[in-house]
Amino acid sequence: MSGKSVEVKFLEGVRIVDFTQFEAGPSCTEALAWLGAEVVKIENPKVGDPGRRIIPGKPETDPYYFHMFNANKKSLTVDLKSPKGLALVKELLKKADVCMENMAPGTIDRLGLGYEAVKALNPGIIYAQVKGFGAASPFEKYLAFDMIAQATGGVMSVTGDADRPPAKPGIALGDTGTGMLMAITLIGALYKKRATGEGCRLQVGMQDAMLHYMRIGFSSQARTGKVTGRNGAKMAGINIAPSGIYPCKPGGPNDYVYVFCSRANPEHWTRLLKVMGREDLIDDPRYATPQLRFERTAEVEEIIRAWTQHHTKHEAMKLIGEAGVPAGAVLDTMELQNDASFEERGIMQVMHHPKHGPYKMPAWPVQIDGASPRVKPSPMLGEHNAQVLETWLSMTPASIAALQGEGVIGQVDVPKAAE
Amino acid sequence: MSGKSVEVKFLEGVRIVDFTQFEAGPSCTEALAWLGAEVVKIENPKVGDPGRRIIPGKPETDPYYFHMFNANKKSLTVDLKSPKGLALVKELLKKADVCMENMAPGTIDRLGLGYEAVKALNPGIIYAQVKGFGAASPFEKYLAFDMIAQATGGVMSVTGDADRPPAKPGIALGDTGTGMLMAITLIGALYKKRATGEGCRLQVGMQDAMLHYMRIGFSSQARTGKVTGRNGAKMAGINIAPSGIYPCKPGGPNDYVYVFCSRANPEHWTRLLKVMGREDLIDDPRYATPQLRFERTAEVEEIIRAWTQHHTKHEAMKLIGEAGVPAGAVLDTMELQNDASFEERGIMQVMHHPKHGPYKMPAWPVQIDGASPRVKPSPMLGEHNAQVLETWLSMTPASIAALQGEGVIGQVDVPKAAE
Repeated sequence: MSGKSVEVKFLEGVRIVDFTQFEAGPSCTEALAWLGAEVVKIENPKVGDPGRRIIPGKPETDPYYFHMFNANKKSLTVDLKSPKGLALVKELLKKADVCMENMAPGTIDRLGLGYEAVKALNPGIIYAQVKGFGAASPFEKYLAFDMIAQATGGVMSVTGDADRPPAKPGIALGDTGTGMLMAITLIGALYKKRATGEGCRLQVGMQDAMLHYMRIGFSSQARTGKVTGRNGAKMAGINIAPSGIYPCKPGGPNDYVYVFCSRANPEHWTRLLKVMGREDLIDDPRYATPQLRFERTAEVEEIIRAWTQHHTKHEAMKLIGEAGVPAGAVLDTMELQNDASFEERGIMQVMHHPKHGPYKMPAWPVQIDGASPRVKPSPMLGEHNAQVLETWLSMTPASIAALQGEGVIGQVDVPKAAE
Repeated sequence: MSGKSVEVKFLEGVRIVDFTQFEAGPSCTEALAWLGAEVVKIENPKVGDPGRRIIPGKPETDPYYFHMFNANKKSLTVDLKSPKGLALVKELLKKADVCMENMAPGTIDRLGLGYEAVKALNPGIIYAQVKGFGAASPFEKYLAFDMIAQATGGVMSVTGDADRPPAKPGIALGDTGTGMLMAITLIGALYKKRATGEGCRLQVGMQDAMLHYMRIGFSSQARTGKVTGRNGAKMAGINIAPSGIYPCKPGGPNDYVYVFCSRANPEHWTRLLKVMGREDLIDDPRYATPQLRFERTAEVEEIIRAWTQHHTKHEAMKLIGEAGVPAGAVLDTMELQNDASFEERGIMQVMHHPKHGPYKMPAWPVQIDGASPRVKPSPMLGEHNAQVLETWLSMTPASIAALQGEGVIGQVDVPKAAE
């Protein structure tokens, strides 16, 4: 294990039966696992979470995509279409605090594991569902993935250049962004349940979740009366200069530094001028106020560009940042992956997986008493079959072997079963 | 109050002393307020949270920006630079479960309210901090706003068109995206504290938080060995066709529909062809597999464009979505604001503020037993001065009036004090 990491036990003792797949659901249950909950993925014995199988032609290899969203979880393979498999999962649900799923609309109900059915088994269950569109939405029955949520939730309309079609943010806001809002609500529900024993039903639509991240766009529209557009690297509908990216040496696709001078702090502009050796402009009446600087945006940007083009983005960020002006280099995935600081601080950690080479991946970024929650590798398909059935249901090795023989559960790895 | 909304009491009894400002911090404490925590904003008696003052020339009017991130909170105005004001806040901290702040690096310590000081007053405190850069980061002392986090956290490098400079997603991922990760951790810490009484220190850097949302970019890079780039409306580094936006009538800047055919479900392509009246292509060997369709992306896209251009984005979404293919219209802020479905479902709610006209704004999007947490309007500056001091510290109206007379706290509205 690398960096400053620690096993967090905030949610110790919380048991989650996890039917989630791909990313929106798994990102949520993974957050709870990082905080100490016991998360048991219920997976199809043949292929498992389809997130394990997204690389064409490599059906046997869990991709990085899967590792990212399933760290610290356990895997139990059960054939939900067999009566015994369904009965087994119902026994687990009786022992659980949380049941979560994000299957296509109607699927979990057809399996006989809808909210009413699970609540009848376990009245204190917290039953959480992520769907593409919210309950009672006109689109409730439609399929959705991340990009559909970003399109229908407004996010694409405010992203990209003003003279081009909408762009999709390269981050999975529709998936992980939604998963995080469910995680907040879920732990809130657990907080209440710890005192009262009461459960509840939680539902979120990915489209609806996007509105939560779109509030700047709605407040700009409320102020101006106009649709909030897209504006490249700048903020749409906000009249500030400088606020944007400026080209740096050596001119690669991400060689830019973001520079921002807040309207609330007139010192930013003065400090920036000093960094750039342009003290001559400090008392220049043409640039004396935020309003004047905005009116002369093209001139302000040329002044900055004339300086940044002689520096790398790293130099520019350091010089401007140390002077007390908000500035940031545009960093790419490789630069971030190779930056040792993240690993030293536990923000990225190395996963040690039995079948895969060590791989450094982002961990939970919030530090608890100075350390990040420790990454444990994603589970192999069915890795915890024996362990979960023994600890949750007190089953014996013989009865577990019998279930496996009947095909109700998947392969049980004997050495693991002895753990 | 509009739509399906309910007063949620998950975090009932949780007391939060909230020093946050602008968005990253306030979005976090607001989420806790929506779930039932009592959140008391400590504000400067003269101007309050600088988020109240972002509109130049309108110093007396709280902007929509402020309302969005401070719903359901209380406001207490205290002069932290007066010894009596500082002492008053320390008394409140003794009664609190959580203390949260996101001031510039070092500011809270200079006020005498750093972690060690607050922990000495209240050993069980959960002390939460959001900064631009993480503790021990090389950039720890630098200022940051949302866009600086999006630049340095990789988000901009994967957003925009491949032949253009990086774009900033129009959503405030650096702010609200970070606030949500802190909210998850904070409620997790409260869950433990409810059982053990123990507190802890929580810290997150906005740059670090971005990596959590960038995991698709890191997994693509791990698979390909190459930096993950940007790819307009498509997913960078993922070889799927169709997966993108297609132009619709009448050709406005957001008249596009996103269409996606998953590699995992061959039916998507067949269903799409039927919707478009192109049954002739169902058995066409040129498009028989996901790999072949990706190799013929230009042809596939032309086939879809030839159909979408005869439909509005709403028609196209409905026809394709009802056929069981993931599809979504690119909706803009005005279309979302005016869509009655959100209000009917409680996803957007109307804020009734004493000084501002009714305004429909996004509420917490996760539904709890079928309803969203009810939006209460953001507090007026100092609105809860008397109420908080009476209920938290059992102060009398006379002693509160004396504090106001000395300028230790701001204006106390007498009718409100009698509430």
